[in-house]
Amino acid sequence: MSKNTVMKENFAIVIHGGAGTILKKNMTPELHKAYYDKLTEALNAGYEILEKGSSASDVVVAAIKVMEDSPLFNAGKGAVFTNKGANEMDASIMEGKTLNAGAIAGVGVIKNPIEAARLVMDKSQHVMLSGKGAEDYAKLNGLEIVNPKYFFNQKRFDQLQKIKKTEKIQLDHAEDDEDYLIDPNQLKDSKFGTVGAVALDKNGNITAATSTGGLTNKKYGRIGDSPIIGAGTYANNNTCGVSCTGHGEYFIRKVVAYDIAALMEYKGMTLIEAANYMIYEKMTVFGGSGGLIALDKKGNIAMPFNTQGMYRGYKKSSGETVVKIFME
Amino acid sequence: MSKNTVMKENFAIVIHGGAGTILKKNMTPELHKAYYDKLTEALNAGYEILEKGSSASDVVVAAIKVMEDSPLFNAGKGAVFTNKGANEMDASIMEGKTLNAGAIAGVGVIKNPIEAARLVMDKSQHVMLSGKGAEDYAKLNGLEIVNPKYFFNQKRFDQLQKIKKTEKIQLDHAEDDEDYLIDPNQLKDSKFGTVGAVALDKNGNITAATSTGGLTNKKYGRIGDSPIIGAGTYANNNTCGVSCTGHGEYFIRKVVAYDIAALMEYKGMTLIEAANYMIYEKMTVFGGSGGLIALDKKGNIAMPFNTQGMYRGYKKSSGETVVKIFME
Repeated sequence: MSKNTVMKENFAIVIHGGAGTILKKNMTPELHKAYYDKLTEALNAGYEILEKGSSASDVVVAAIKVMEDSPLFNAGKGAVFTNKGANEMDASIMEGKTLNAGAIAGVGVIKNPIEAARLVMDKSQHVMLSGKGAEDYAKLNGLEIVNPKYFFNQKRFDQLQKIKKTEKIQLDHAEDDEDYLIDPNQLKDSKFGTVGAVALDKNGNITAATSTGGLTNKKYGRIGDSPIIGAGTYANNNTCGVSCTGHGEYFIRKVVAYDIAALMEYKGMTLIEAANYMIYEKMTVFGGSGGLIALDKKGNIAMPFNTQGMYRGYKKSSGETVVKIFME
Repeated sequence: MSKNTVMKENFAIVIHGGAGTILKKNMTPELHKAYYDKLTEALNAGYEILEKGSSASDVVVAAIKVMEDSPLFNAGKGAVFTNKGANEMDASIMEGKTLNAGAIAGVGVIKNPIEAARLVMDKSQHVMLSGKGAEDYAKLNGLEIVNPKYFFNQKRFDQLQKIKKTEKIQLDHAEDDEDYLIDPNQLKDSKFGTVGAVALDKNGNITAATSTGGLTNKKYGRIGDSPIIGAGTYANNNTCGVSCTGHGEYFIRKVVAYDIAALMEYKGMTLIEAANYMIYEKMTVFGGSGGLIALDKKGNIAMPFNTQGMYRGYKKSSGETVVKIFME
């Protein structure tokens, strides 16, 4: 029996499509179904190749691409507009076996930012590339480049126009209601709608990845937690893989994704204990809103969030499949 | 007695001016004296105001500005050139009391990048700004803007021309010798010459900060660990403040600065144990070259590095003052 055939059977994939003030009362049955179906499609896109033996990295990229290609999420096609009416996207990916990682920040013409992060991880000597340079690198390596119009979305554009008047920054999945406009001076920032995925493959390897369109009306080349290894994304085969969504600045300051691994490795917490402690205690006391998905080497899954909802789901080799939006 | 007068007496400042293959045999007495004097000047610039009761944040900015204004270090005035002959600088700062943080990445016309990081921390709703946007924000808030020529340095420019021929990336403090040119495919990156400072003030507050000119001949808008909270810079009054220098990509993947705090908080290590374990064991096994400075709430100081030298020094309220370059 060759080494390659000793494969584990507790593989799994978990995804999120962002956390925020997602309220049942404001969601039509049609929109609910659209989100539910797209999350299911993303999960299945990953699970199908996972089951066939694909690497965790191939799996998370496949799942995230489905969400990036949909206007429903704030990543790729559905990316929100900056103050200047542009789309600046960030993404990152990390492999738990080697701790290799790749990230891109502030890119505008790459159809699938997660593929650019993957490219940086696999081919570049660097971990993080930004702006025009990152776009050049993606072009040079044959990634699909699109006209900026590809990212145009009337709803997002209208959000920008409305919010520009108020000069406030909007949570992406916040309902279109003045109550949900964030006063930057109070919150020191917010970001919702990010997508992410973590997978454990048949070889026991974990990969975590995150992709985002950032903040509606963001200025000054702001970079959130999504492309920051340790903050928005982290993976280590010995502990876990994590992808975050929420008020990016709080996630950076608390080094959230890596801290879950540290709590497991140094404090002996289980994945569920560490993930719940992070979101329901540490982040809630700290004042940071958001959530995360996490998966350990045994295929255990955590999806805590302290907002009203988080688009999320997982599928395990045991057959267990879950897709949820609201708190339950 | 008012609350403000209950001040601690174990204040301290520690600085670094980068780690690398700094060899005694290649350093003239004049150059050695120039580094020694500039490190002493930076230490004193911080210590003088620290002694008078200034905040740790004021102290680290004062010390780093001295190094940014000198052509001896790869930060500010002495920043190395990118592949396109430009200077792209990164900096970050974090306060241990509030976990507030600020960072800028890829800026070219801000005289003192550390002041821009401080500005982001103090005034912005964000933690990290990048590129043209970060420059706009600095301008808008009255920071000193300089002509790009300010950063021109014949030695750095010659380094670029030479290295462009070899298409390799150079460690900043590596001697001008083919042996010290890094093969990116082997090392997956390198960065040296970064400056940093950590201070503990009379109120028991810790601030850590880092500033860098990045890599000679860097391409594609590469961002290293220096502006990444958790990787290159971290501070928490309960544990420690840390500023790193070295192969940025390795420091990002190991979340080095935060990991020292985690080892202290979760594993009960002392500052010295955590810092030494990180550099001499974790990073050395991982293959990452570099060093760091760290300081805890009692004023203990660690300055480990696994390279041949690290420009470094500290000054404590006890009167103890140390400035060193080589291993001893």
